[in-house]
Amino acid sequence: MQIDYKQAAEIIKSCDDVHILTHQSPDGDTLGSGYALYFALRQLGKRAAVICPDGATQRYAFIGEGYTEESFEAKTVIAVDVADPALLGSVRECYENRVDLCIDHHVSNVMYAKKTLLNGNAAANCEIMYRLFEELGIKTDNDIARCLYTGIATDTGCFKYGNTTADTHRIAAELIGYDIDFARINREMFDIKSRERIRLEQHILNNMEVHFGERCGVLCVTDSFRSELGVADEELDGIAGLPLQIQGMEIAVTLKEKSTGGFKVSMRSAGRVNVSAICQQLGGGGHINAAGCFIKADLDETKRRVLELAGKALGELN
Amino acid sequence: MQIDYKQAAEIIKSCDDVHILTHQSPDGDTLGSGYALYFALRQLGKRAAVICPDGATQRYAFIGEGYTEESFEAKTVIAVDVADPALLGSVRECYENRVDLCIDHHVSNVMYAKKTLLNGNAAANCEIMYRLFEELGIKTDNDIARCLYTGIATDTGCFKYGNTTADTHRIAAELIGYDIDFARINREMFDIKSRERIRLEQHILNNMEVHFGERCGVLCVTDSFRSELGVADEELDGIAGLPLQIQGMEIAVTLKEKSTGGFKVSMRSAGRVNVSAICQQLGGGGHINAAGCFIKADLDETKRRVLELAGKALGELN
Repeated sequence: MQIDYKQAAEIIKSCDDVHILTHQSPDGDTLGSGYALYFALRQLGKRAAVICPDGATQRYAFIGEGYTEESFEAKTVIAVDVADPALLGSVRECYENRVDLCIDHHVSNVMYAKKTLLNGNAAANCEIMYRLFEELGIKTDNDIARCLYTGIATDTGCFKYGNTTADTHRIAAELIGYDIDFARINREMFDIKSRERIRLEQHILNNMEVHFGERCGVLCVTDSFRSELGVADEELDGIAGLPLQIQGMEIAVTLKEKSTGGFKVSMRSAGRVNVSAICQQLGGGGHINAAGCFIKADLDETKRRVLELAGKALGELN
Repeated sequence: MQIDYKQAAEIIKSCDDVHILTHQSPDGDTLGSGYALYFALRQLGKRAAVICPDGATQRYAFIGEGYTEESFEAKTVIAVDVADPALLGSVRECYENRVDLCIDHHVSNVMYAKKTLLNGNAAANCEIMYRLFEELGIKTDNDIARCLYTGIATDTGCFKYGNTTADTHRIAAELIGYDIDFARINREMFDIKSRERIRLEQHILNNMEVHFGERCGVLCVTDSFRSELGVADEELDGIAGLPLQIQGMEIAVTLKEKSTGGFKVSMRSAGRVNVSAICQQLGGGGHINAAGCFIKADLDETKRRVLELAGKALGELN
């Protein structure tokens, strides 16, 4: 059942002993939402624990500074930024049917929780948390400001993407008034890479295929590509948009070979081509600038089908 | 003479036939300020022309969309984001002694204009333009919003750097309410690189020296480096911070060999080391995270002097 901010605030006021769930492969927005909620619940005198399906990476450790781990039975379960119970990963079985409240900004939320506070217009889930805390009369402090800022910066590419709204900037204006080193946070989140990641990205940019006069870059992540580079799939997170760094590129295509056969296709657009429309024709979907589909075929046939539609879309631009 | 917003507004109200000067090697902030002032002056029914010392690059062409070139004798000259007449490049001789008003946010401004509106707290000069337009009662439109947003995004690294203030975000909140494709602007400004630039950055990252356990990267731009890569000095703009992309790096040092002998030293810090203090000891200066100096010595001796101080500063962190 979908509820509004006031109703969600009522649930939080009357709950206790809360397990807060983030999604697996946690990013700054789910962690920022989770820890901000923890600090808010502590302010209300309640006991809370953040449950992160497969643990947060060292990169995000700063978000939870000041958090004290405590073990207790949950009386209330709240999921943040989790659109689907499948994203609960290792804790899915334990929590799937007992999420009391889900706070989310994905319009694709499958409404698995007893109550859901959903705002698809929020660029980041942390924007929803901010409004909810206003409703609750929570006093923003340095910890909460750090968490919420990190989540908002994460999901907007530091205010760079089109999902950024006037509200996003207004909330950021307030949050940076607290004692948070947002420049350091942004550096950690957006600028720093490991030596291995730098090498991987270089390899990708230097070896991808280009089509239609350098307007479409295609990256084929086949089994032989993986073993040649010695990388696991999780290390390939975020590579789909890499080709769009190059001047003139309109479409980036990543074809990932699946162990069960066929290819997972990820498409990214620089803004002029609607890749969701292309993926829909191939049985998938997504957003205008980021979409995907699955094609059960060999590499050549997969590429042929994708490039046919990509070439047509590029032709229509002229 | 330094003046305030009200006095600057009076000058603009009573002026006409304005030549607006940007600095050489123009960036988004000087161009955004210049064209925004042009659109504001047109709104006030005045004639204006933007004079860009060595022309703007294609990259920034979108800023001046809607601008009409007109040739006329200047009755008033206004410089925007120009801290020193030396930055007027090819038009210095013509305008140096006749700048009526300078609008700037560099505390290093040498006060060469008859009147100067200076606000060193503004992250971008376009923030000053925004306040000045408020004072003048200028109605923000899509053209002005595009110019001001571009300038603010340029000088704050899209709200990423520590110079960003609550005001910066508040102004951005208003500006993105107009019909501007800020996501496209940010993509053009921050994400896109030429193939040549990508290759250059790869070469630099793969070939720089590292010291003190990968915490200090040193890039030596000697004459042989330049000829080996076949790059001119202007293509090396913005490389000084590259080493800081790598996890764990605290200091980036660039040593540029000068044709007249000696090395121009640029230092960048990830935030923990004060490189201005190091450069001051070497006869230079700058900001805490970005500073420089000149050392009249050969490469080995230059490197020795810089690394001695860098190593000492890194040692003090532990």
